[in-house]
Amino acid sequence: MSQLSKASMNIIIRLHIQKNLVSFSDIAKVIGETGGDIIGIDVISTGKTQTIRDITITVKNKQHGQLVMDSISVLEGAKVISVSDRTFLLHIGGKIEITPKNPIKNRDDLSRVYTPGVAQVCHAIADEPVKAHSLTIKRNTVAVISDGTAVLGLGDIGPLAAMPVMEGKAMLFKQMAGVDAFPICLDTKDPEEIIRITKAIAPAFGGINLEDISSPRCFEIEERLKQELDIPVFHDDQHGTAVVLLAGLYNALKLTGKKIESIKVVLNGVGAAGTACAKMLVAAGVRNIIGVDRAGAIHRNETYDNPNWTTFANITNPDNISGSLSDCLIGADVFIGVSAPGILNVSHLKMMAADPIVFALANPDPEINPDLAEPYVRVMATGRSDYPNQINNVLCFPGIFRGALDCRASEINEEMKIATAKAIADVVSNDELSETYIVPSVFNQKVVEKVREAVVKAAYETGVARKDLLKDENSKEFITS
Amino acid sequence: MSQLSKASMNIIIRLHIQKNLVSFSDIAKVIGETGGDIIGIDVISTGKTQTIRDITITVKNKQHGQLVMDSISVLEGAKVISVSDRTFLLHIGGKIEITPKNPIKNRDDLSRVYTPGVAQVCHAIADEPVKAHSLTIKRNTVAVISDGTAVLGLGDIGPLAAMPVMEGKAMLFKQMAGVDAFPICLDTKDPEEIIRITKAIAPAFGGINLEDISSPRCFEIEERLKQELDIPVFHDDQHGTAVVLLAGLYNALKLTGKKIESIKVVLNGVGAAGTACAKMLVAAGVRNIIGVDRAGAIHRNETYDNPNWTTFANITNPDNISGSLSDCLIGADVFIGVSAPGILNVSHLKMMAADPIVFALANPDPEINPDLAEPYVRVMATGRSDYPNQINNVLCFPGIFRGALDCRASEINEEMKIATAKAIADVVSNDELSETYIVPSVFNQKVVEKVREAVVKAAYETGVARKDLLKDENSKEFITS
Repeated sequence: MSQLSKASMNIIIRLHIQKNLVSFSDIAKVIGETGGDIIGIDVISTGKTQTIRDITITVKNKQHGQLVMDSISVLEGAKVISVSDRTFLLHIGGKIEITPKNPIKNRDDLSRVYTPGVAQVCHAIADEPVKAHSLTIKRNTVAVISDGTAVLGLGDIGPLAAMPVMEGKAMLFKQMAGVDAFPICLDTKDPEEIIRITKAIAPAFGGINLEDISSPRCFEIEERLKQELDIPVFHDDQHGTAVVLLAGLYNALKLTGKKIESIKVVLNGVGAAGTACAKMLVAAGVRNIIGVDRAGAIHRNETYDNPNWTTFANITNPDNISGSLSDCLIGADVFIGVSAPGILNVSHLKMMAADPIVFALANPDPEINPDLAEPYVRVMATGRSDYPNQINNVLCFPGIFRGALDCRASEINEEMKIATAKAIADVVSNDELSETYIVPSVFNQKVVEKVREAVVKAAYETGVARKDLLKDENSKEFITS
Repeated sequence: MSQLSKASMNIIIRLHIQKNLVSFSDIAKVIGETGGDIIGIDVISTGKTQTIRDITITVKNKQHGQLVMDSISVLEGAKVISVSDRTFLLHIGGKIEITPKNPIKNRDDLSRVYTPGVAQVCHAIADEPVKAHSLTIKRNTVAVISDGTAVLGLGDIGPLAAMPVMEGKAMLFKQMAGVDAFPICLDTKDPEEIIRITKAIAPAFGGINLEDISSPRCFEIEERLKQELDIPVFHDDQHGTAVVLLAGLYNALKLTGKKIESIKVVLNGVGAAGTACAKMLVAAGVRNIIGVDRAGAIHRNETYDNPNWTTFANITNPDNISGSLSDCLIGADVFIGVSAPGILNVSHLKMMAADPIVFALANPDPEINPDLAEPYVRVMATGRSDYPNQINNVLCFPGIFRGALDCRASEINEEMKIATAKAIADVVSNDELSETYIVPSVFNQKVVEKVREAVVKAAYETGVARKDLLKDENSKEFITS
């Protein structure tokens, strides 16, 4: 999950002002003195002796906002009624809604979309269950499922508090790719229960997007659901990051002229995202990739408590190197960090091969400050929106699900993910490609369409697309055949 | 669940016509000869030698449609490409969609509704979980949960085939009352599993509408969920019918001048809906109600396999009468049928007290044909839209949930249901009230608003409303308090 940066916030203070006791200029003065910047004033109500105003103020952070408020509260005649900020206002009542595609205008409409007409449609699906893909929302709907255990950088904040993220994800699905997505935040952390529930609610959905489920539980949950459901299951934190990383790598390699088969990659942080990135890179042809975690390089002479690391050792580190991050970085072409701020320093960069490529994806603060790294690297990418080359999974999930739904894919396989990475990379033309532009903007409208095409093609080629293109299913439902 | 009636259907035949072999008038002729009525023609594509047209034809039923098609297929040069009907067309791709309330226009918007801004909102909810009611879709969202075991009159057709009904319900929730409702069709019939799953997915929702779950499982599921969740749980098939029935009864009693405390009611069909109706009537003040099922009157001298009937016997039949439906109907003021077609005949009606009131709610065919009954009853109501006085739970569920959500009710209790029935009844003014108009139309826009007001009032009076009206929660989210 990538993080964007924000240096200040706007708060909106609703003030009750007794005109005979305090003037607005007095209030403006104390706001200015405490460092607040008034950027808007709205009069909510006004009378002879009192007035209510909303004052929008830019402050540094929440603590600073509190300071500004406290300074106002000291003034006799000024009373803070409420304080909110624009981010909160955008969340009041939630961010998504569920609407009919066609209004029910009269009794005839009602009798078609509800009883008795709907019974015909129910019958048709009962007789031939595959018709649910065309006659219900299953055709276009994805469940965004989380247990709230690994939300952004916030950790285990629970299902209620995870909802705003999942609603945001649903917004992006719809706006970027026309996919209907509904957030399901589960009040359980038991993997077996999560698997059972996801399977039980699956009839309404054409795909499952797992989100912000902590490692290592996320691996088992995803694996089992992939085996036991006949619709795509995709843990975005793992594969979304991996796909966009690979897209960036493809373009970075074009710049340096290196071949993917011959590069040496050091990957720091072997958690859920790290493991997925390594698997993706191996599938894409990287032969020499070394994972590093707190214990140093992951290699095959060690026994690890974490079964994930044992699996990892078996598919990576061909020379079975051990040692520290520094030891591994000697002669490396690519560094990938999905770990923690400040892990990497300039002397590390100097050990790398010519034209170092660095993906420092820790959120919100990268493994190395991009400004510090700049003189020593050829290509630098982070998870941040305030530096070039943001590795953001918004580039992946809308389009990959759009494609999977459109061809009624039974799964999202490695080939579809690699095709997605190539499609994202190819949105950046050779003319546009540069050290500071290896991935397109999340607002680039070509991305979803290109990804969709590539995913559909890969799905047919690998035999997981189930939509019969020869049948005119989109425009008509047959009552006879 | 009430049924509407439909005597014919429209089909749309897409025809490939070879102009040199057959003329459109030849085709129109055979359609006319087989009794089809052409009501529309659309040219889809046309060339020198061939043309494709969509012909909309009114036919009696599916078999008749097949006959019409067969008659066309015999003609050389005419080929049926596909056949569909308007009801199916309305269902292609599902009937609801999930849309952002505000578009994400730029990076600033993105940083508020998604990372990093959303983290503030997640934090606020993690610190104070009650804020989920104002900062997420929980405030306005209901889950429509079914296992597909008792769908309309179709029985156990499974979760996939139940989806069109649940989607239709979601449409009605939104259009009638602005409530966001999402269909969850469960691939399990195990009551314990249904209870566990509903509890686990509850964080996203402000209410649970159980739907089309077969009896007696529906009783346990609803009871347990009511106890174990802190949001309203409402099995619409039971309580929706009961509430609207009571609304109709209130108005029918106004017409006959009888008092609810002194009427004798015979209720035929002691299943889920029948039990709920009886409980509702008892709560509303009916003292003499006798339930009749296949075994005759339910009374306290019998031991029943069905525990529901034992409970039923304990709250009804004050004189502990046994015997057949005929025996019970002697001197009855009200007959309520939630059973099967044709159970009631004219001689039954003649046994009843003066001014008989008959609710014949079996679907799609009532316990007695309304035309047959008409001369012998004062007030007649059915579940059908083609006769007066349709008892349709669309009159209840949108408004009752609207009210419950608006005051953040922890449950929908008896008082709220009775208030709903009264509000529905009161939408029919004394001037409008007549034997053929005891309940308002489902399209009467006053219904939801009146029900909402009544439900909110009853919720505050009974202490289940949890929204603090003194706090300005709707317009502002406090970051400080």
